[in-house]
Amino acid sequence: MKIERPRGTRDFTPEEMQKRNFIRNKIEEVYGKFNYLEIAIPTFEHIELFSLKSGNDIRESMYVFRDKGDRELCLRPEATASVCRMFANDMRTAQKPLKFYYYAPMFRYERPQKGRYREFWQSGIELIGPKNCESDAEVIAAAYTALKNLNLEFELEIGHLGVLRGLLNDLGISGEKQDELLNAVDKKDVTRLENLVEHGVIFDVLELKGTKEGSKEILGKAENLLNDYPDAILALSELKEILLMLDIMGVDYVIDLGVARGLEYYTGVVFEMRVQSLGAQCQIAGGGRYDKLIGLFDGPPTPAVGFAFGFDRVMDAIEVQNIKIPENEVDFVIAVVDHSVRKNALKIASKLREKFIVDFDLMNRKIGKVIEYANSINAKFVIVIGPREIAENKVSVRDMKTKEQKTVKISEIENLLTK
Amino acid sequence: MKIERPRGTRDFTPEEMQKRNFIRNKIEEVYGKFNYLEIAIPTFEHIELFSLKSGNDIRESMYVFRDKGDRELCLRPEATASVCRMFANDMRTAQKPLKFYYYAPMFRYERPQKGRYREFWQSGIELIGPKNCESDAEVIAAAYTALKNLNLEFELEIGHLGVLRGLLNDLGISGEKQDELLNAVDKKDVTRLENLVEHGVIFDVLELKGTKEGSKEILGKAENLLNDYPDAILALSELKEILLMLDIMGVDYVIDLGVARGLEYYTGVVFEMRVQSLGAQCQIAGGGRYDKLIGLFDGPPTPAVGFAFGFDRVMDAIEVQNIKIPENEVDFVIAVVDHSVRKNALKIASKLREKFIVDFDLMNRKIGKVIEYANSINAKFVIVIGPREIAENKVSVRDMKTKEQKTVKISEIENLLTK
Repeated sequence: MKIERPRGTRDFTPEEMQKRNFIRNKIEEVYGKFNYLEIAIPTFEHIELFSLKSGNDIRESMYVFRDKGDRELCLRPEATASVCRMFANDMRTAQKPLKFYYYAPMFRYERPQKGRYREFWQSGIELIGPKNCESDAEVIAAAYTALKNLNLEFELEIGHLGVLRGLLNDLGISGEKQDELLNAVDKKDVTRLENLVEHGVIFDVLELKGTKEGSKEILGKAENLLNDYPDAILALSELKEILLMLDIMGVDYVIDLGVARGLEYYTGVVFEMRVQSLGAQCQIAGGGRYDKLIGLFDGPPTPAVGFAFGFDRVMDAIEVQNIKIPENEVDFVIAVVDHSVRKNALKIASKLREKFIVDFDLMNRKIGKVIEYANSINAKFVIVIGPREIAENKVSVRDMKTKEQKTVKISEIENLLTK
Repeated sequence: MKIERPRGTRDFTPEEMQKRNFIRNKIEEVYGKFNYLEIAIPTFEHIELFSLKSGNDIRESMYVFRDKGDRELCLRPEATASVCRMFANDMRTAQKPLKFYYYAPMFRYERPQKGRYREFWQSGIELIGPKNCESDAEVIAAAYTALKNLNLEFELEIGHLGVLRGLLNDLGISGEKQDELLNAVDKKDVTRLENLVEHGVIFDVLELKGTKEGSKEILGKAENLLNDYPDAILALSELKEILLMLDIMGVDYVIDLGVARGLEYYTGVVFEMRVQSLGAQCQIAGGGRYDKLIGLFDGPPTPAVGFAFGFDRVMDAIEVQNIKIPENEVDFVIAVVDHSVRKNALKIASKLREKFIVDFDLMNRKIGKVIEYANSINAKFVIVIGPREIAENKVSVRDMKTKEQKTVKISEIENLLTK
C-alpha cells in the first residue's frame, strides 16, 4: 500500500537536519548570550486560546479536532498565545523577567507553496515582565544579532502600533474597526483601507519609511503630522528612545510606520525582518510588544515583547545567499576482510567509540567498496581488519585525505586523530 | 478567560528544559559515536500508515482528524512507521545502510498517569538496509551505551520473535492468531493466553529467562525444548550469535524469550529496557528487528532494526536515581545605579555578549535586589555601572562566589572570565 506524507509536510534527511541543526544552534547561541532559556509548550491546545486575538488569517487556517471528551483542540498555529497561557497557568508569581525561547513546529492549513508549508518551524523569544525601551531594544537586538551571526543579509523594519492605534484612538475609531484597519495595512490592501477610513493623516503616516541614516527626518515628519494626536505622539517618543538604544547596540534598521503585523495582540513596537531575494515569501521574522495578551488569558496584566523567526525561510535565505555550512564528518570506518575477524573488529569499534565517531561496515562490502562508502560519508580513516594483521595486534589504516595506507598497532589507532 | 493546557500535555520550564536538553544531548552523543544522524518526520500522517501494523493499543488511542480535503489524518503515535514511509517514498535507491535517529513528541489518547502522557517524547534509532547479527548487536549496543552514558542503572531484556513466531509457524498457528497471541504475551495475560493455545511448549519457552551469566543454561534449555521446531531453532541460533557479539561489546543483558513487544511489525530480535524503581511504568525503551514493514508501505522489501526510548521515563529515572545535571550559568549581570548611564551600560552589555552570557537588569532593580536576582540565576559576576565609575572608564564588579567587590576598567572586564 503506497502512503504519501500529508500535503504541506516534509521529511528531513540527515543532510537537511545537519544544516538545520547548525543554523538552529547558531541562532540559539545568540539567544543564550542574552540569557534567554529554552521552554517547550504542547503541540495542541484548546481552541479558545487562539480564537481570541490571533487574527482572522490564523483562525481560519487552524487544524481543529475533538478529543474523545468532545473538547475542541487544535494544533498550535503559533507559540506566543501558548507561552502566555503557560505564564497565566503556572508562573504568575515567578521572578521577573521571564526570558524564554522556543523552537517548534507550527501548523496552518494553507495552500502549500514555496516558503509556505502546513507544518513549519518557528524559533522565537518571549520576554515577559518588564515594560521599557531597554526590553524592546533587547529583543530586537537579539533577533538582529542572531541573523548577523549567520552572516545573512537582511532588512529590519521597525514600526510602532502605539502610533497607529494612538492616532486611531485620537480620531475616535473603535477597537474592532482598528483591528480591521490594521489587517488591511498588514496586507497592504489600499482599496480596502480607503473604504475603511477617510482621514488623510492615516495614509500620510503609513507612508513614513526610511533608513536609519534618514531617521531624524522621518521622525521629524511624523511629529509634524501627529502634532494634534497626543496618544500617537507619546508612542512616537517611545519609538525614538528604542531606536536610540538600537543605535548604541549597533543595530541597523529601517523605520516603517506602516508595519502592522497580522496578529491582533500587538500593542507597542513592532518589527519585521526581510530577505528580499526570497521573493514573495521574503518575511523571515516578525515580532513586537503585546502588553494585553496575558491579561486576556486570566493572567495578571503583564507586559511582554517577543518575536519569531520563520525557521524554514531562514533556511531558504541561507541557501539563496549561498552561506556554507560544515558537513558531517566521520572519524573511522571499520571493515573486515574476512568473517573470522569480525569479532575482533567489533571490539576495536567499541573501544574507539568511547572517543570517536566510528562507522562499522554493516553491509559486508569488499574493501574497494568500503573506501567508496567512506568517501561518500566524509570519513577521515578506513581501518581494515584482517587475520594476518590481527595476529600481530595490528590493523591496516587508510588515510582518506592523503590516500596513504599503513599498518598501525591497535593500541595506537587513537593517535591518528588525537595527535 | 481562563484556559488550561490540554489534559495529558505539559509545558516545560527553562529548568526542566535545561535538564531534558542535557540528557537528550548525552544520548545523541552516543548515537553520533555510532554515526547515526538526525532526521525529522511530520507531526501528523495519513491514518493508513498506522492502521496496518501498529497494534491495537496504538490504533485505538490515536488522535484522528480530517483536513479540509476530508482526508483522515492523525498525530503520529510512534516514529518507526513514518521512517519506513519516508524511506519508501524517497530513499529507495539511497546508499545503505541508512542510520537515522530522531527526537520527537508522540501522541496517544490514554488516561494520563505517572509516566504516561498524551504528548510524550521518544528518542530513537532506525537502521535500514543490513540484515545480520552485527546490525542487531549495534543497535542494542547503542541503546545500552546511551543509558550507560547517563550513569543510569537499568536492565536490558533480549528475546527473539523469530523463536516464538517460528515455533507458532511450526505448530501451524496462523499469522492473525499469532498477533493475538503475542499481544497476550506482551500483556502477560496468562488467562487469555491459555484460552488461545494448548501447546505446553509455548508456555515453557515463554518462561525461559535468565542473566548473561546463566545464558548458556537458558539457551541449552531452549534448544532442548525447540528441537522439533526448525524455524524456532534457526532463530535461536541467530539470537545466540547476537548475544555473543554483545558480550564482545561489553553489553550486559538478561535473556527473556517472553519479550513480545506491543507492536505487530517485529520479526526478529526484540529488546526492552527497564528501570525497576519506576514502578508500574518501568519500561523505558523497546525495539527490535522489523524486516517486513517497509515492504508493507509499497517500498522494496528492506530489512530494518531500531528502538525508541520513552524520553519522559528516562527523565523520571534520572530523577529517581538522583543523577546530577549541571545547572544553567550566567557570566555577567549588568545593572545601572542611575538612569543617566543606561546607554553606557547597553554598550558594555553588547560588547560582552560577543563572548559571554550577559543578563541586563531589565527590571530597574535597586542594587541589593540585583544581587539577589544574580544569585538566583546562578551568575558569576554582577557589573554595576554608575556615573562616577563611567567618568573614569570603569565599572564596579562583584564576584558572586567570593562576594568581593572591586573597580575594573571597562576594557578589562573580559579578563575576569578568560583568565
